[in-house]
Amino acid sequence: MITFEGLNPIYGGVCAAAGFTAGAVRAGIKASSGKDDLALIYCVKPCSAAAVYTQNIVKGAPITVTQKHLKDGKAQAVIVNSGNANTCNANGIEIAELMCGLTADCIKIKKEDVIVASTGVIGQQLTREPFEKGIPVLAGVLSEVGSTDACKAIMTTDTRVKEFAFEFTLPLGNKTCRIGGISKGSGMINPDMATLLAFITTDAAISVPMLQKALSDANEISYSRVNIDGDTSTNDMASVMASGLAGNELITEENEDYEAFFGALCAVMLNLAKETARDGEGATKLIECAVMNAPSEEAAALISRAVISSSLVKAAVFAADANWGRIMMAAGASGAEFDPEKVSVRIVSENGDVKVCENGAGVGHSDEEAHKVLLADEVIIVIDLGEENAELNRSVAWGCDLTYDYVKINAEYRT
Amino acid sequence: MITFEGLNPIYGGVCAAAGFTAGAVRAGIKASSGKDDLALIYCVKPCSAAAVYTQNIVKGAPITVTQKHLKDGKAQAVIVNSGNANTCNANGIEIAELMCGLTADCIKIKKEDVIVASTGVIGQQLTREPFEKGIPVLAGVLSEVGSTDACKAIMTTDTRVKEFAFEFTLPLGNKTCRIGGISKGSGMINPDMATLLAFITTDAAISVPMLQKALSDANEISYSRVNIDGDTSTNDMASVMASGLAGNELITEENEDYEAFFGALCAVMLNLAKETARDGEGATKLIECAVMNAPSEEAAALISRAVISSSLVKAAVFAADANWGRIMMAAGASGAEFDPEKVSVRIVSENGDVKVCENGAGVGHSDEEAHKVLLADEVIIVIDLGEENAELNRSVAWGCDLTYDYVKINAEYRT
Repeated sequence: MITFEGLNPIYGGVCAAAGFTAGAVRAGIKASSGKDDLALIYCVKPCSAAAVYTQNIVKGAPITVTQKHLKDGKAQAVIVNSGNANTCNANGIEIAELMCGLTADCIKIKKEDVIVASTGVIGQQLTREPFEKGIPVLAGVLSEVGSTDACKAIMTTDTRVKEFAFEFTLPLGNKTCRIGGISKGSGMINPDMATLLAFITTDAAISVPMLQKALSDANEISYSRVNIDGDTSTNDMASVMASGLAGNELITEENEDYEAFFGALCAVMLNLAKETARDGEGATKLIECAVMNAPSEEAAALISRAVISSSLVKAAVFAADANWGRIMMAAGASGAEFDPEKVSVRIVSENGDVKVCENGAGVGHSDEEAHKVLLADEVIIVIDLGEENAELNRSVAWGCDLTYDYVKINAEYRT
Repeated sequence: MITFEGLNPIYGGVCAAAGFTAGAVRAGIKASSGKDDLALIYCVKPCSAAAVYTQNIVKGAPITVTQKHLKDGKAQAVIVNSGNANTCNANGIEIAELMCGLTADCIKIKKEDVIVASTGVIGQQLTREPFEKGIPVLAGVLSEVGSTDACKAIMTTDTRVKEFAFEFTLPLGNKTCRIGGISKGSGMINPDMATLLAFITTDAAISVPMLQKALSDANEISYSRVNIDGDTSTNDMASVMASGLAGNELITEENEDYEAFFGALCAVMLNLAKETARDGEGATKLIECAVMNAPSEEAAALISRAVISSSLVKAAVFAADANWGRIMMAAGASGAEFDPEKVSVRIVSENGDVKVCENGAGVGHSDEEAHKVLLADEVIIVIDLGEENAELNRSVAWGCDLTYDYVKINAEYRT
C-alpha cells in the first residue's frame, strides 16, 4: 500500500530539498537552437545515491560511467547534456569521463561522486570543447532557484517542464523532509525500467539499500507504466540522491518512516511519469488505462500497458472514436490470460462516463455520447476483467494519442 | 534450406490449382461502400486442409468455428466477409455457423467442410440478412477466373490485390502441380503466427500432418516476419487446401517431393507477406531488415523484427533520414544478446549502398548520399552482428514506413 497522506506540494523542484542547488548554461552542443543544453545539480555534501537504468543492451557511454561511479552508493552532483546522446560514439567514454572530471574540478568534489547523463541524437561524435567551455561557467551559476532552468536545459522534444516537489513528515521522529525531481522524455518511451531521464533529490536520511529498493519499487509503478511509442531509449536513467540534511534518524528498514518516504517518492515519480505521457511527442490527450478485477496483478499490468501502447487504440482516441474493439484486441494480445466473456469496458473523462462493452460484447452505447467523453484532454479507459475476489489485482498505465505530429516530429527530428 | 528452383509464376491466384473456383458478391455488409464484401472459394472435391490462427486470446467467432471444422483435416470451401470482424458480438457464433450452413446448402457440401473468416470492425452486431441474400447468389458466380474478385472482396484498408500462383514439379514422379493464394491485411499487423487473412490452394496430394507442418514452418519465416503497427488482430488466419488432383503420389514424409512443395508454399507466402508490408496502412516504402552473423538464429529473428517494428526507425525511413542510431536502439531493445561493438549497419536500395556504422560507431557517411539511397520505394537495412562462423544465423523481416496517412486512416476508420 502506498500512502499519499500528508504530502504537501511545494516550490523548488530538484532544489526543494535542503542542500541542493542547480543551474544551466548554453554550451553549444545543440549548435543552432540558442537554448541551454547543459545542466548541473549539486549538493553541499556527499549523498546516498541510487539509480535505475535502461534495459537496452545498446547503452550510452554515460550509463556505463554512472554505473561505475554509483558502485559505492555515493554521489554529490549530476551533470547532464541534451542535443547528443553520446551513444554509439568511438569517443563516448572519454567524453563522459571528461564531463565528470571537469565538473569535479570546478566544484571541488570527487570525480567518482558525479552522475553523468546525455540525451539527443544517437551516433554523432561529440567534441571536448563545449564541455571545457561550459562546465566552468555552469559551476558559477548554481542557485537554489535553478531547478526549472536545469529542467529546461535537458529537454529535447519535450514541450512541458516536468518538475515536482513535496514536503512530508517522517512519523517516528516527527521530522519534516522534502523531496523533488525533474525529468525529460517525450519520445523513445517504452516501459522497461527507467524510460527517460529523471533526477530526484531529498534531504531525508536513508541508507543506500533502502534508497535503491524504494527507487526500484516506485519505478515499477510509475515510469514502467508509461509508453509513448514502444521504443526503448539507450540512455534512460532515473537517479535519486539523499542528503540527510533533514536530520531524521537514518532509515535502514521498512518501518513507518520508510513508508512515508516511499509514498513521497512515488508521488514525485508518478507525477513525472504522468506528465511524460501527457507530453508524448505530438500528443493531444493523456490516456490512462485502469484495469481491475484481473486474474492476477501481473495480468492487470500487462493489459494496462498493452492498451496504452496500441497504435490503433491511440489513433482512435486521437479521433475521439470509441472503437472499443481495438481495446479488446490489445488486451487479448497482451500476453495475459483472462476470460474475454467476463470483460466490461468504460470510457471516462470530465465529460462523462460511458459503458461500451459488457460480458465481452457491445452494449449499444451512443457513439455521440462516447465521442463527447473522448473529446476531453484526459481520457480514462476502465477495463473490468470480472474476476471475483480480485480487488487487489489492478494496474494503471499512462500513454497518449497517436497524431500526425508524432510522425512529423520524428520524420523531421534531425532536419 | 528452402529451394525456389524450378518455380514458374502463373496466372490464376487461388484458382490456379486444379479443382478450385472462386467468386464474390456485394452482400451489403459494408453498407455504404458499394463494393463486394463476401467471397467464396470452392473445390470440386474435399481437400486435405490445415490452418494457423492468431495468438490473440480475444478471438473472432469465425476462428472458433473454423478450428472446430478443421479438426478432421478436411475442407472443401472457404467463405469470407469483410466489413465486420464478427468478434466481441453476442451472436458471433450463430452468424459464423449460419455462414457455413448457407454455403454448404448452396453448393451441396458438408457444413463441417467449410472454413469461415471475417475481417473488419470489432464489436459490431451482424444480422443474418446479408448472408441469407448473398450466399445463394455467390454460389452461382463461382468461376475459374474468380480469384481477383475474391481477393478484392476481402480487402479492408488494403490498396493492392495480393495474389500469387506458381507451377512446380514434384521430382519423385515428375508430376506438375500448382499452388496459389490470396490475402488481405494492411493494419493491425504484428508477427504472431498468422497476421492477416490468407487462403492458399494447391492440387498437390499431401497428407494433413505434412500440410500442417509445411504451413506452420512457412508461416514462421513469412507472415511471422511482417509488422505494420505492432497490433495483433483477433481474426487472423492462414489456411491451405490441397485437392490432390495433380495426381502425384501422396506426400507423407519429408522427402524430395515435400521439399519441392515446401519451397513452392514458401514462395507464395513470402510474396504475400512482402506485399502486405509494402501495402501497410499509409506506407510509402517497403522496409526490409536483413540480419546476419548473429550469435544465434533466434537473435537474428528478434533483431530483424524489432528494427522493422520501431516507430522511430519507420518515421526516419519515411523522411529518408539515415538516423541509424535508432536502428541500434531498436536492435538493443529487441531482447537479443549481442555485442554492440561488433555491429555494422548498411542502408541499401536500387539507388546505392551506404555503410553508416562499423564496430558500433558512426563511420562519417555522407548524409546526402544516404538520403538518396533512402528515397527508393524499397529500402534494405543490413545489420551485420560480426560473430564468426555464424553464416546460418540470419533472418529477414519486412515492414513499412510510418506516415501521416497511417494516423489518418486509423483515426478515420469508422467515420
